Amino acid sequence: MERREWVELTVMCMVCDGQGNVLVENRLKQDWPGITFPGGHVEPGESFVEAAIREVREEAGLTIQNPQLCGVKQFPLSDGGRYVLLFFKTSQFTGELTSSEEGEVFWVERAALHTYPLAMDFGEMVRLMESEEFSEFFYEPEGDEWRVRLL
Amino acid sequence: MERREWVELTVMCMVCDGQGNVLVENRLKQDWPGITFPGGHVEPGESFVEAAIREVREEAGLTIQNPQLCGVKQFPLSDGGRYVLLFFKTSQFTGELTSSEEGEVFWVERAALHTYPLAMDFGEMVRLMESEEFSEFFYEPEGDEWRVRLL
Repeated sequence: MERREWVELTVMCMVCDGQGNVLVENRLKQDWPGITFPGGHVEPGESFVEAAIREVREEAGLTIQNPQLCGVKQFPLSDGGRYVLLFFKTSQFTGELTSSEEGEVFWVERAALHTYPLAMDFGEMVRLMESEEFSEFFYEPEGDEWRVRLL
Repeated sequence: MERREWVELTVMCMVCDGQGNVLVENRLKQDWPGITFPGGHVEPGESFVEAAIREVREEAGLTIQNPQLCGVKQFPLSDGGRYVLLFFKTSQFTGELTSSEEGEVFWVERAALHTYPLAMDFGEMVRLMESEEFSEFFYEPEGDEWRVRLL
């Protein structure tokens, strides 16, 4: 019995500076534009933790340590299977902030994050990452629409 | 560009009773026999959290609440893609302990867990689930062998 599914594996990382600021990226790609945290696809054979470390290095120039898994998002893909996003967070890093062609990276006050033009769903994703209560951001079909649930 | 991979999605849940005991299952299936926590495959379209809730109900008769994501394990599959196991833990549940045909379930003292005949890798998996430092249990090729790393 085939138990495998087609899955698009991705990661995202919330980097905190320990002084009330979080690292954001103004994502330019039009598939999901707006303010997000650094992240991207997991490469074949790559560890999830190392994918998070690599993405933050590539997109922000920082080398993070000890990213902690803090939630998961999934939604069904139109061509079958699912998109899975693993969330990490850390406040340990070294290096100099450097933007990439994916978008400008900069620090913002966590308390002011909601005043920025956030990418779709991003506010709820941050809520999940910071929550002690929820672990999953889940899209569920409801008639012809999709309903979001935090679980 | 195809960004999807073949992935076998599974969950496992550590249920604690708040008095120093954890719920274990003496797994009978010979693909991975020994003492483990309840768990199993995620069904197509199913949420990861709800898969954990369902598996504990099916294998132990308990209805858990608020399982928290606490780690991930992965290893490459011989026929391509990867096996991904999401770990959850909770100390909230209702119901009466009831074993299934998958194996007897019972409470053991957490401190005595290592004295039981644990399934392969299970001791390291518990270490990961309880760790504040590590998030991932990762198999990496090393020559003709596989090396385990906690990340």
